[in-house]
Amino acid sequence: MPNISKRGLEMPASPIRKLVPLANRAVEKGIKVYHLNIGQPDLPTPECGLEAMRRIDRKVLEYSPSEGIRSLREKLVKYYAKYNIIVDADDIIVTTGGSEAVFFSFMACLDPGDELIVPEPAYANYMAFAISCGAVIKTIPSTIEEGFALPSVEKFESLITPRTKAILICNPNNPTGYLYTRKEMNQLRDLVKKYDLFLFSDEVYREFCYTGAPYISAFHLEGIENNVVLVDSVSKRYSECGIRIGALITKNQSVKENVMKWCQARLSPPLIGQIIAEASLDAPEDYMLEMYNEYVERRKFLIDGLNRIPGCYSPIPMGAFYTVAKLPVDDADKFCAWCLSDFEYEGQTVMLAPASGFYTTPGLGKNEVRLAYVLKKEDLAKALEVLAKALEAYPGRC
Amino acid sequence: MPNISKRGLEMPASPIRKLVPLANRAVEKGIKVYHLNIGQPDLPTPECGLEAMRRIDRKVLEYSPSEGIRSLREKLVKYYAKYNIIVDADDIIVTTGGSEAVFFSFMACLDPGDELIVPEPAYANYMAFAISCGAVIKTIPSTIEEGFALPSVEKFESLITPRTKAILICNPNNPTGYLYTRKEMNQLRDLVKKYDLFLFSDEVYREFCYTGAPYISAFHLEGIENNVVLVDSVSKRYSECGIRIGALITKNQSVKENVMKWCQARLSPPLIGQIIAEASLDAPEDYMLEMYNEYVERRKFLIDGLNRIPGCYSPIPMGAFYTVAKLPVDDADKFCAWCLSDFEYEGQTVMLAPASGFYTTPGLGKNEVRLAYVLKKEDLAKALEVLAKALEAYPGRC
Repeated sequence: MPNISKRGLEMPASPIRKLVPLANRAVEKGIKVYHLNIGQPDLPTPECGLEAMRRIDRKVLEYSPSEGIRSLREKLVKYYAKYNIIVDADDIIVTTGGSEAVFFSFMACLDPGDELIVPEPAYANYMAFAISCGAVIKTIPSTIEEGFALPSVEKFESLITPRTKAILICNPNNPTGYLYTRKEMNQLRDLVKKYDLFLFSDEVYREFCYTGAPYISAFHLEGIENNVVLVDSVSKRYSECGIRIGALITKNQSVKENVMKWCQARLSPPLIGQIIAEASLDAPEDYMLEMYNEYVERRKFLIDGLNRIPGCYSPIPMGAFYTVAKLPVDDADKFCAWCLSDFEYEGQTVMLAPASGFYTTPGLGKNEVRLAYVLKKEDLAKALEVLAKALEAYPGRC
Repeated sequence: MPNISKRGLEMPASPIRKLVPLANRAVEKGIKVYHLNIGQPDLPTPECGLEAMRRIDRKVLEYSPSEGIRSLREKLVKYYAKYNIIVDADDIIVTTGGSEAVFFSFMACLDPGDELIVPEPAYANYMAFAISCGAVIKTIPSTIEEGFALPSVEKFESLITPRTKAILICNPNNPTGYLYTRKEMNQLRDLVKKYDLFLFSDEVYREFCYTGAPYISAFHLEGIENNVVLVDSVSKRYSECGIRIGALITKNQSVKENVMKWCQARLSPPLIGQIIAEASLDAPEDYMLEMYNEYVERRKFLIDGLNRIPGCYSPIPMGAFYTVAKLPVDDADKFCAWCLSDFEYEGQTVMLAPASGFYTTPGLGKNEVRLAYVLKKEDLAKALEVLAKALEAYPGRC
């Protein structure tokens, strides 16, 4: 029997995935599990998106163009303009989810051995895509004590080598909910300019900024237009993760041409998803506002609740719909597993994402978890109660 | 401005893609272009698939499981059983098109520098996926004179090195339409066994076998169950290329577990596509039979027509909906471009795929083209007439 690839062996198994069988067993035992572990919004997909799908009267569900349907790309131009991101339809390549946009950015820009600097904690799948193309992720820890602010310029510079090719940020941030300030974004701009790096900027949560602080896109930074590759997705803002529609946006002609070769190799992004995404861009203001207000309330409710549990601490996330919180436990991996396998309170338990999966530096995030506030307030209330009880009962409390 | 990846520079630009702007210009000039160059069936998607899409009454278009929806995988089990491919739902991983199944197979099994043997001419995008994961494709020419039969075992063995990790076939074949015989498949089995290789088998055209000769799946070969990775797609058989649903099927536990890591990294295959694919599996026998009969007729019509044009030769393809034909021209790349840029007959012209894009050995296929018979017979008749006139008028005729 031939061996699988070394790369295959290197691929980390996500710590959340290890919990899935435990969660399934809990459900089989009749326990209600509150899922604070995933970024799947519970809010409805816009009716106009669903309607567009139901009204499709094509006879043949054909390939669409490899770069995506023109009318969708033109509509995205107007959407981005509202955020002062000024691009042409030709700067936008439609991808199969934001995931593919990350992957194609890496493929087009990074060679095996090239280094990519990422502040951690970071979205775990960046690592998988880096391994796919043989690139090396170098992480700089941001800390819960500093609210996960951007690490200092000196820390970035200390990691830069002749193989450094890019910096990757997620803004607003998954998993921390941090929103980079104008000053921090300017620091990144200066670094990118000074060392001639790519800046990959994952901005799929731009709708979710709660504090009045401005959202600064990588495209707002002057003088690095050819360095920026923006990753986007309609998944979160329209609660349509399943349609798998994202976008890669760049003004760098070489990157664009190169990404197109991968787009052509995989033929086309999903047709029906593109039709739904295009229609969703017409979601009424009310839809967006209701969703926004809902997350504002949930955020306040969850963060207040967490910080009232003895020994817990969560900074106040400024964006996205996650927070990374510190728990009074010996090991969050063990605690999260224990909640599913050995605990219940009135027939209920919680599933959390251990933060260890978002760090590459060993030992970091050991007592941290990521919580997503994609549940109704009533459920969040119950989940918080259950979490408090779990922390009281957990044998590894400290 | 930072450089793109070396891999990015290596990625071949498809010769068909170079023709697209010429075709667009021809259309702008008011010329009717017969597209014999693409594998996009013109036949309708099954009504039951379209209906399932229109009837979706979900409120949230959520992520589906990374391995695909269980009910779809269970239904595929029954579908494969009809072809005597006996697998469990757990052996089936739903992918974003057959393309992703090829890519994940390579990622899970091949390390940079590993070698993969492929008979050529071969589907051009295999090359792109090999470059993506740093693997090296070694091609063995099959020839039009031998009807593109499998090259001899000796030729395979002469290419095997310590780095050889896999053999890749497409059966029935794109671009040649060749269907591997029982004897040839057994030869492959013996090679795979002797050298302990993976056998990647792309069998997306299994519905399209025309000669009564049996379709032998890689899964029919005994003793190599752990070596086989099967690539499949619903695109061609249900004329729904745009929904991007394929499958990777293997009994090799390590490969499966590893492929799942990539599946998790890209979160999930398209939800709506899976719903359509699942419903399409219920397409009535009439639908399949009508489609089959249509292709049988088109095949006869196209091949007879081609072989009646002076200087042209096409073997009789046994499957798929392509043929590779030899034309009396100096250079098929030039001829195909000339048809679009410098020729018209009664306001019409043809677009063909130069075969050079399907070979990696330089110089091979120079006077060959691939033709897809995905047009109505009336249009095929006109396209053949136009092709004959073009060959008469072409200055590089030989």
